Amino acid sequence: MSYPLEGLRVLDFSWFLAGPYATMILADLGADVVKVEAPERGDPSRTAGPFANGVSGYFLSVNRNKRSIVLDLKSEAGRARAAKLAGRADVVVENFVPGTMKRWGLDYATLAETNSRLIYASCTGFGQTGPRALESAFDLVIQALAGTMSITGEAGAAPVRVGNSIGDLGGALYLTIGILAALQARHRTGRGQALDLSMMDAQVALLENAFMRYFVTGETPARLGSRHPLIVPFQAFPTSDGYVVVTAGTEAQWGRLCEALGASELKEDARFLTNTARRQNIPALETELSARFKTRTTDEWLEILRDHEIPCAPIQTIAQAASDPQIAAREMIVNVEDAQAGTQRIVNTPLRFSEMQSGVRTSAPQLGEHTDEILRDWLAE
Amino acid sequence: MSYPLEGLRVLDFSWFLAGPYATMILADLGADVVKVEAPERGDPSRTAGPFANGVSGYFLSVNRNKRSIVLDLKSEAGRARAAKLAGRADVVVENFVPGTMKRWGLDYATLAETNSRLIYASCTGFGQTGPRALESAFDLVIQALAGTMSITGEAGAAPVRVGNSIGDLGGALYLTIGILAALQARHRTGRGQALDLSMMDAQVALLENAFMRYFVTGETPARLGSRHPLIVPFQAFPTSDGYVVVTAGTEAQWGRLCEALGASELKEDARFLTNTARRQNIPALETELSARFKTRTTDEWLEILRDHEIPCAPIQTIAQAASDPQIAAREMIVNVEDAQAGTQRIVNTPLRFSEMQSGVRTSAPQLGEHTDEILRDWLAE
Repeated sequence: MSYPLEGLRVLDFSWFLAGPYATMILADLGADVVKVEAPERGDPSRTAGPFANGVSGYFLSVNRNKRSIVLDLKSEAGRARAAKLAGRADVVVENFVPGTMKRWGLDYATLAETNSRLIYASCTGFGQTGPRALESAFDLVIQALAGTMSITGEAGAAPVRVGNSIGDLGGALYLTIGILAALQARHRTGRGQALDLSMMDAQVALLENAFMRYFVTGETPARLGSRHPLIVPFQAFPTSDGYVVVTAGTEAQWGRLCEALGASELKEDARFLTNTARRQNIPALETELSARFKTRTTDEWLEILRDHEIPCAPIQTIAQAASDPQIAAREMIVNVEDAQAGTQRIVNTPLRFSEMQSGVRTSAPQLGEHTDEILRDWLAE
Repeated sequence: MSYPLEGLRVLDFSWFLAGPYATMILADLGADVVKVEAPERGDPSRTAGPFANGVSGYFLSVNRNKRSIVLDLKSEAGRARAAKLAGRADVVVENFVPGTMKRWGLDYATLAETNSRLIYASCTGFGQTGPRALESAFDLVIQALAGTMSITGEAGAAPVRVGNSIGDLGGALYLTIGILAALQARHRTGRGQALDLSMMDAQVALLENAFMRYFVTGETPARLGSRHPLIVPFQAFPTSDGYVVVTAGTEAQWGRLCEALGASELKEDARFLTNTARRQNIPALETELSARFKTRTTDEWLEILRDHEIPCAPIQTIAQAASDPQIAAREMIVNVEDAQAGTQRIVNTPLRFSEMQSGVRTSAPQLGEHTDEILRDWLAE
């Protein structure tokens, strides 16, 4: 079986998370991703912990399946070599501050002169244009500015950061989509083009529903803990040993939930008769339901709720999710053999095709591991 | 200027969020997305509020640029028509419970018999295989099971839901990537294939760093509020009128931050001399810094922090983000004219190409608005 992106050459100048996560997806799909790294230091995420036998887990996780070449972009020889490789690439990915690649003669306009089929994907915090274009951005800044944090957290309490780096990852996913769309266009036109991806734009695109609510109602969306803005109850409740999320939006579900909780008196309680009534009496409803959910374990409630056909789930820790039978059945966690770190477990691609392969094949490269091999492969044609 | 996905025909059986968000991206890129809807009711998100002149803002936001055809898949005639349209499609998207499309004779194997170039993308909560395959899933369930909620929220307090529907949206973005990768493969092989996308798999893929930390250290990742797991300080602080996020990971930045806060005595404080020391004394550090940040407004602090070259940002509400000058310069919020709802503001695509167009062109369709037109366009060749 082959891979969907077999034969696709990606020259990747990016580092840390957003760019490398995008090229990880391309590599998982079979693209030949060549990671360009600076001498000695390489991608700075190589020094980000935690470490497995001295190898950065951070680096290993998002750089599997790639090859590494060392090029000193601060030297003329290094830049000339990079330009030559770009002449043989289908895709260039970079996430430098706008203007950097131009100073090095590695911008789209220059490279396209000799490679008109090149797709040139830039990923920055704020894009190549606009008043913030040159501001430095990191995940927390993107989550803060775009509005994500303002709607994440307990009602009335401080905003919190989404636990994973969704500011970077949203940018990475959109970057990947843009690259693949430009590839599709190239089959029609024969020509490449530049893609200008802003992590903040991508984050706003993922907040479309919150922006829509604000535009339609004029009300600024608030933090709601685990609650849904419209349906009540649709949230998490603490149990005697953890949490359970539950939803009962219809009157029938509400009735069954009351029975499941052994609280049939709540069914006739005027404060909770309809979703509208329940929305007006959220604090009272939470008090009534919380008191009952605390009397049993999560597992006990899951069984009872399922018997009553109430949609529900436990809130799993990362450790619990890692041993979830569905995750195992889907092969979402796989072993990778690393020469230095040994056998490591990492998260696999979620992309599953009927006729083709995808996923983790090789561990992340050592710094410059493939320099000679890549020069031979790409330039000796 | 043309669009990257011009000429691409997408037959979209999906509803609510994950599938429609993916086909929204394809439509924004110029694909001809035909939304198949049930008679009378249509996509159930048409009844999701808030409403603008009776039009669901929820529906309008993610279904712009699409056309709507009404087909009754519960009737033989409707299914026959759907199969005929699938014969002329490049891509089919569906998010029914596994087995549903097969019962209707609209599964990949059946449709591929007459259209071997078809790309058939299924998006479900847990995928087509595995013990949870037939469980019903919604965003809160995916966020709960995959581990997202367990790492989102204040330390020691209850887990919270990510404020936007990242369970659905993560699935949508990966679904889009899978479709475009299969298209790229089709240029090589001449054949389509099926894509089996699980929202839970996609969510786990977005949690790769948290899983990696667990696998490498054996420690279950915890909730940290707005804090970074390794760098201190790298978090939000309340000001006199809001919040500011700030990072000072290096010793030089820490020194400048102390000066910016008018607290040069903290520079010599042994508890805070290095990042390691600061990590060991987080509560004390937060007490010291919080007391000072509360004395000025967010705007005042931003000016002071920028003068001291400390990376920083305000935590913006959705209303504030909507009027951010960068968002305006990037045209991330645009007007769309809707026949019934009037002029509405919605979030634009973040994809910007040098040689091609993308973005919002037309409002979301009325139910069945294009039924005759689509039958004529697609079947009269």
